[in-house]
Amino acid sequence: MKEKLLQQSIELFEKKGFSETSIQDIVDSLGVTKGTFYYYFKSKEQMLMQINLHYINDLLDTQLKIIEHPDKSWQDKLYDVVYMLISRIEKHGASARIFFRELVNLNGEYFEEILHKRDQFRIRFQYLIEQGMKSGEFRDDLRADMMTFSILGSCNWSYMWFRADGPVPEKELARSFLEVFLNGIKK
Amino acid sequence: MKEKLLQQSIELFEKKGFSETSIQDIVDSLGVTKGTFYYYFKSKEQMLMQINLHYINDLLDTQLKIIEHPDKSWQDKLYDVVYMLISRIEKHGASARIFFRELVNLNGEYFEEILHKRDQFRIRFQYLIEQGMKSGEFRDDLRADMMTFSILGSCNWSYMWFRADGPVPEKELARSFLEVFLNGIKK
Repeated sequence: MKEKLLQQSIELFEKKGFSETSIQDIVDSLGVTKGTFYYYFKSKEQMLMQINLHYINDLLDTQLKIIEHPDKSWQDKLYDVVYMLISRIEKHGASARIFFRELVNLNGEYFEEILHKRDQFRIRFQYLIEQGMKSGEFRDDLRADMMTFSILGSCNWSYMWFRADGPVPEKELARSFLEVFLNGIKK
Repeated sequence: MKEKLLQQSIELFEKKGFSETSIQDIVDSLGVTKGTFYYYFKSKEQMLMQINLHYINDLLDTQLKIIEHPDKSWQDKLYDVVYMLISRIEKHGASARIFFRELVNLNGEYFEEILHKRDQFRIRFQYLIEQGMKSGEFRDDLRADMMTFSILGSCNWSYMWFRADGPVPEKELARSFLEVFLNGIKK
């Protein structure tokens, strides 16, 4: 039931917005009572926090495994992180869009925790770029932080438009993003 | 007064969110009455629409001038569009973030109009890439639509993090984005 409540809420938050969705809307759409909601969650805010945390923790765990892989090149690790982000759009796209859009609705302490985790993800991404520079795989004449923002920006933005059932499969998008990031579009 | 109401509302929508900001909040913060608000705007939604339209129309106009420039190379035009987006962050960053975040709060007709204009911007961006391919400046072995999404994504995402008073000036960010897009980060 907890999972069902979360799924249904993600759908409603995505469609109507967090503020416009009441707990009553959520429980009505599942045919349960408010008591059921409060059995699992303290408040709508705490539920939003759980949705955000679930999403970012999963990304952080997978990212760490990719970066710590003992054999792969930094290029391949970059591909793996980009692919991780894109391949999660189908299943977790709504969570991610809520994550980006509804941050403003988290109160102080929650907000800080989520911001901290977002920073962690970006800093580790930058570490990957820096290691690739040190190893000689990537150019070292550009700022690693700006490259990180550029590449991560493309990936994050794909949550706004990419559909896994569209004309381009996930792997092809990840590969063509990588091609642009690694080699550029200049002839 | 209309301009003041718009500026104040953009600030409040950005900080508290559109739904959490009442017309009362807006007029209170300026020490005027609700009558003043309704003299200029039909509703909060109509005001949001004006904010969005103002932002996107300005981008579309400038983009068209850049693309139609008779002498510049497609690379230079790409730089100009990227720089246009980044250089608007300082003055229009809040409008843009509201534009992306609060679309969900526009009703049917408004929503369609804004979506149409967003599409127009992206399609023209893609046209620029395609012309660069035809002219031989850009590689023609990648999908122009995916390249568009990738580059536009980086630029749009910079609205989430870039500060014009930070360590990197606008022109430097635009140049280093262009460097990644054109030549890639691979050594």
